[in-house]
Amino acid sequence: MCFGLANQGYAEDGYDLWLRYRPLESVAKARYEPQIAGIVAPGDSPTIRAAVDELQRGYRGMFGGDLTQQGAELRDGAVLVVRAGSPLVQGLDLPFAKLGGEGYLLRSATVQGKRVTIIAGNRDIGALYGVFRFLKLLQAGQPIDKLDIADAPKLQVRVLNHWDNLDRHVERGYAGQSIWDWQKLPRFKDPRYTDYARANASIGINGTVLTNVNANADILRPDYLQKVKALADAFRPYGIKVYLTARFSAPIELGGLATADPLDPAVRAWWKAKIDEIYAVIPDFGGLLVKANSEGQPGPADYHRTHAEGANMLADALAPHRGILMWRAFVYAAENAEDRHKQAYTEFQPLDGRFRDNVLVQVKNGAIDFQPREPFHPLFGAMPRTPLMMEFQITKEYLGFATHLAYLGTMWEEVLEADTFRPARGTTVAKVIETPVDAGAATGMAGVANIGSDRNWSGSQFDQANWYAFGRFAWDPDAKAEAIARDWARMTWGGDPVVTDTVVRMMMGSREAVVDYMTPLGLTHQMATGHHYGPGPWVADLKRPEWNPVYYAQARPDGIGFDRTARGSDALSQYAPQVARNWGSLATVPDELLLWFHHLPWDHRMKSGRTLWDELVVRYDAGVDQVRRMQADWAGLRGKVDETRWAEVRDFLAIQLDEAIWWRDASVAYFQSIAKRPLPEGHKPPAHDLDHYKAITTPYAPGQGK
Amino acid sequence: MCFGLANQGYAEDGYDLWLRYRPLESVAKARYEPQIAGIVAPGDSPTIRAAVDELQRGYRGMFGGDLTQQGAELRDGAVLVVRAGSPLVQGLDLPFAKLGGEGYLLRSATVQGKRVTIIAGNRDIGALYGVFRFLKLLQAGQPIDKLDIADAPKLQVRVLNHWDNLDRHVERGYAGQSIWDWQKLPRFKDPRYTDYARANASIGINGTVLTNVNANADILRPDYLQKVKALADAFRPYGIKVYLTARFSAPIELGGLATADPLDPAVRAWWKAKIDEIYAVIPDFGGLLVKANSEGQPGPADYHRTHAEGANMLADALAPHRGILMWRAFVYAAENAEDRHKQAYTEFQPLDGRFRDNVLVQVKNGAIDFQPREPFHPLFGAMPRTPLMMEFQITKEYLGFATHLAYLGTMWEEVLEADTFRPARGTTVAKVIETPVDAGAATGMAGVANIGSDRNWSGSQFDQANWYAFGRFAWDPDAKAEAIARDWARMTWGGDPVVTDTVVRMMMGSREAVVDYMTPLGLTHQMATGHHYGPGPWVADLKRPEWNPVYYAQARPDGIGFDRTARGSDALSQYAPQVARNWGSLATVPDELLLWFHHLPWDHRMKSGRTLWDELVVRYDAGVDQVRRMQADWAGLRGKVDETRWAEVRDFLAIQLDEAIWWRDASVAYFQSIAKRPLPEGHKPPAHDLDHYKAITTPYAPGQGK
Repeated sequence: MCFGLANQGYAEDGYDLWLRYRPLESVAKARYEPQIAGIVAPGDSPTIRAAVDELQRGYRGMFGGDLTQQGAELRDGAVLVVRAGSPLVQGLDLPFAKLGGEGYLLRSATVQGKRVTIIAGNRDIGALYGVFRFLKLLQAGQPIDKLDIADAPKLQVRVLNHWDNLDRHVERGYAGQSIWDWQKLPRFKDPRYTDYARANASIGINGTVLTNVNANADILRPDYLQKVKALADAFRPYGIKVYLTARFSAPIELGGLATADPLDPAVRAWWKAKIDEIYAVIPDFGGLLVKANSEGQPGPADYHRTHAEGANMLADALAPHRGILMWRAFVYAAENAEDRHKQAYTEFQPLDGRFRDNVLVQVKNGAIDFQPREPFHPLFGAMPRTPLMMEFQITKEYLGFATHLAYLGTMWEEVLEADTFRPARGTTVAKVIETPVDAGAATGMAGVANIGSDRNWSGSQFDQANWYAFGRFAWDPDAKAEAIARDWARMTWGGDPVVTDTVVRMMMGSREAVVDYMTPLGLTHQMATGHHYGPGPWVADLKRPEWNPVYYAQARPDGIGFDRTARGSDALSQYAPQVARNWGSLATVPDELLLWFHHLPWDHRMKSGRTLWDELVVRYDAGVDQVRRMQADWAGLRGKVDETRWAEVRDFLAIQLDEAIWWRDASVAYFQSIAKRPLPEGHKPPAHDLDHYKAITTPYAPGQGK
Repeated sequence: MCFGLANQGYAEDGYDLWLRYRPLESVAKARYEPQIAGIVAPGDSPTIRAAVDELQRGYRGMFGGDLTQQGAELRDGAVLVVRAGSPLVQGLDLPFAKLGGEGYLLRSATVQGKRVTIIAGNRDIGALYGVFRFLKLLQAGQPIDKLDIADAPKLQVRVLNHWDNLDRHVERGYAGQSIWDWQKLPRFKDPRYTDYARANASIGINGTVLTNVNANADILRPDYLQKVKALADAFRPYGIKVYLTARFSAPIELGGLATADPLDPAVRAWWKAKIDEIYAVIPDFGGLLVKANSEGQPGPADYHRTHAEGANMLADALAPHRGILMWRAFVYAAENAEDRHKQAYTEFQPLDGRFRDNVLVQVKNGAIDFQPREPFHPLFGAMPRTPLMMEFQITKEYLGFATHLAYLGTMWEEVLEADTFRPARGTTVAKVIETPVDAGAATGMAGVANIGSDRNWSGSQFDQANWYAFGRFAWDPDAKAEAIARDWARMTWGGDPVVTDTVVRMMMGSREAVVDYMTPLGLTHQMATGHHYGPGPWVADLKRPEWNPVYYAQARPDGIGFDRTARGSDALSQYAPQVARNWGSLATVPDELLLWFHHLPWDHRMKSGRTLWDELVVRYDAGVDQVRRMQADWAGLRGKVDETRWAEVRDFLAIQLDEAIWWRDASVAYFQSIAKRPLPEGHKPPAHDLDHYKAITTPYAPGQGK
């Protein structure tokens, strides 16, 4: 049997993600073995079975063979997988009270006179989460003989948003097709659905929105609900609920009504019946996510109703089933001349307190659109009576698709650590989303998934880290990006500390590299139109001003940057006064946000002593140089990791370098045509003239909206 | 290492295709081992390296460990991988002369006093093909001690046609996306490209058309040619040439010319320059495939030129590079009222002898469009001075997509064995395509690929058999479907004779089941519109008459069937008189083609004694019953094959049964609404009324044309 499998050169293809469970070194194995001598897992719920299966899978991989399942009489080295209330853990004074519904504890203890390890939660799902934590310790070579860990998620709703269409096209997807094979559902449940659930449960994700926010009402058809049910059944043992997107005009399209006005009784009745129907099929259905009155989607404004009126109608229908309604705050209205940065705040902030208890308003990390760097969204802290959930984008729409190595953990950490000063200093964005607005109010975080049918799930080996990091931040918004990177690197690339250190170093510098070669110094949205692949800073001919890169850079002979001070759009006024002062002053605004908030002359003197123009060029080149450093780092790992994944990353870094140079050259050529200044000493001119870059077309770039 | 891999439950997912190389039973191993003691492979061409790699891969899988590579001094049990002319095989009087450029021989012999096995060809590719044959013998448990095999392909051009678009959508693809990842090419060469080449080489396929016949001129852009070159480089060691589709209007779209008239000197110059450019990038480029003036594609008729004038222009530009031009005969002209069955013959037959030597006219097996059953295309035998190549469709556009088990080997065998009687009895379709029209004229067979990014390549385990069978028929059009099925079953499902017999039995009856539950008794093209998923016999509202299922069935109160006798469209007159007489007479036409050629009253008395109406219902039910038999057969194999693939096939058979019943019920409901006759005794009425079936919509069915 071994030979047959050893034959398969494709085994290290990334499919296993961070749950690789490769054989331990013999020293580690010998050390652990007395401490892992068997499993005791009373009860037979699907979730406990999943926990035992995972423990067995991990054991087989790391140790070989199966763990024996033991009965009631304990032996030394038993691993107990139990719930609070189990007679086995009575009298141990375990801290179940602080675990909540999903937390877990790992505890080394003596039970019946035997040395055992307890993995426990108040509910089965906690025990499953605990098993994953336990396996992580083993993968990382941590001691397990004096365990005393208790952990619980800080947010309640930890969901992926799949922008997946019913024809399996994934909007902003760079990892193949949707993994939901609607054509073969419900009869065929791809074993991959279970592996998807395992991976998510291993990082604490407890929900998944299956469908695109640019929604299609057909997902609510009875035949599709049967398909959704099949997925829900596959995910349920892993504590993952399914959610769907609701197209606001579904009562017209599916129901044949003349209106979708949220105050119309027939519309309300239609939604109530439809939601009752969903719950009849899927009793633990999670709820709905809605994108309304944004980028052409229908919504309550079509009937002169507010977002709150639209959201509350759906929330009322969901409430009897304890369903959640997530309503996106990503709006910018057609024909609205206001700075796009300001529009969501303008529209939503006055609605504070007007949403039902089971509504979560889902706010992107920044006010524009998942750019490589944005200041935190001004709504965070500004709606104290409304549950706000964070929306991050895991898929790299604006950060180089699947082939650019860009670890997003640092970006998310930056936002979560940002101080809103609302109501006072120290109220970070993390605190805002962690703190329920009142007792029992929901909290949450959403991540736009980067998952697809590609064998490696995420389109690249390193993009798996972003899925992993999202789960970790959703569990704990105060987590540290570097620690997460280290955990991921160890589990994904093996235990060699040289490998781990190198991988972590590459990851930690990677996002800043992308910022530098795409949009340095606070520039933003300079990507080509539609697919957002490659540079398009010259694009000025799109219908709406805020679709054009030139709108964002405001590059003119007099200078560059978007004035959002009181002299300009005054978007700064949407932030707390301390924040506005800090970013509004040239003395205190960080270089990283300079051109986001200020329009400055090309010769403006930077903190570095360089002119703005020179600094801009220096940053573009710094981004390219950082990619070269990653290449050199990676070259040094040849032979230390498996050749298949190594070669893939090498090739992807080569693509990244090509494209970083393309970005740098095209941007420098374009801005130089306006700044009309020479390049600083030692910086090479672009390889081609501006017309060359303008002429490049890539009509088949993946992930386009349809 | 073993434990880590044994951990992976997904190992048996079908990725290995028929090249599984699983460990042999110890008896077989012991018997073979003295006969396989080492490799001797002088020379170091990429193809010889590929042959040695494959032998090693097979050995590692079946025996464990590596074969030693031996030097010039032979030992007993050496396996020699050599070319004609090698000093090692001098004086053995081996039959190299009859092998041609691609044939091979396997011979047990004594060389230097040692018992060795010789695997040899005139060229390296022959040796590679021989290695695959040798490995097949081992996989099937055949003796290898007295080998005396010589084999050579009967056709020269053995190509897959990928209907793959540049955005990775595959027209009529049911196996995920295109495996060509254009976005990451040329930098990233997915290791899968090599596995694709291995699989094709193992069955003798020597070319691949990468792009859709509904062509996009952009594939001829310089940046895309670099991507094509990367694929050509990956395939070259395996003897596989790349071909592209040429959009006839490319001189306008890419070249900026005002016309694509094939007689225009600027157009001819543009194509010559473009083709020279291709060959500068890919010196062994195979050639071009064109679909012209068919279903909206541009072509020479747009300029009042003939197909021959269009084809010859491209052939002239390809000739200096020894490139081939494949020109499809699948045409049916807009606004042409002639029976669609007749149009290709009408248009092409008069052009016999007018095409250049390096043109192959590519003719579908039947005159309509890859239906579950069609009589052979009347052009076979009717163009004796023109090289005709066969076009089969491997992907199951009209036979149930990926989830219906339908082995196409029997369908292809039926066509290839059909007697054209041109010029005389015994001239089968196989003979027509095998026999060069003059010395050095090309011969070939094309198969529309069923390959995609799905892990199992073909969308289902059993659809791999159709890829396999296509290769075998392209190598030898006189091959037998059952023998091919047996080879495939043994290699794919293991050596248990019960498994092999059951799998072969399922396969051999499978296509007739589809014919029966979709289009029995010579009915055709009753599929729903566009995607062709599910039944649509009632569809009558499409713009062109021959797009409508009602056009093909001609079901009216007076009877059913398409009259193609002299009283009707007289399509029969396009066949040899013996064929026309046979099919034109109710006494001799087989039931299987009855309604293809005849319009008959509902009460027409069949050979069975039943009325036509009763017989129709009986056939629909026979198709459904056959699916139930396959389910029962498959249920009996549980535990005899791996659980993962077993469960997938079980679930797919459940889908097939659902859909067979859907087809039967919808068709019976519709035809009964016209025939107005009761169902025969013992046959159940449809589960729903006709309106129910008419109301079913499946807008997201995969593989649609775009």
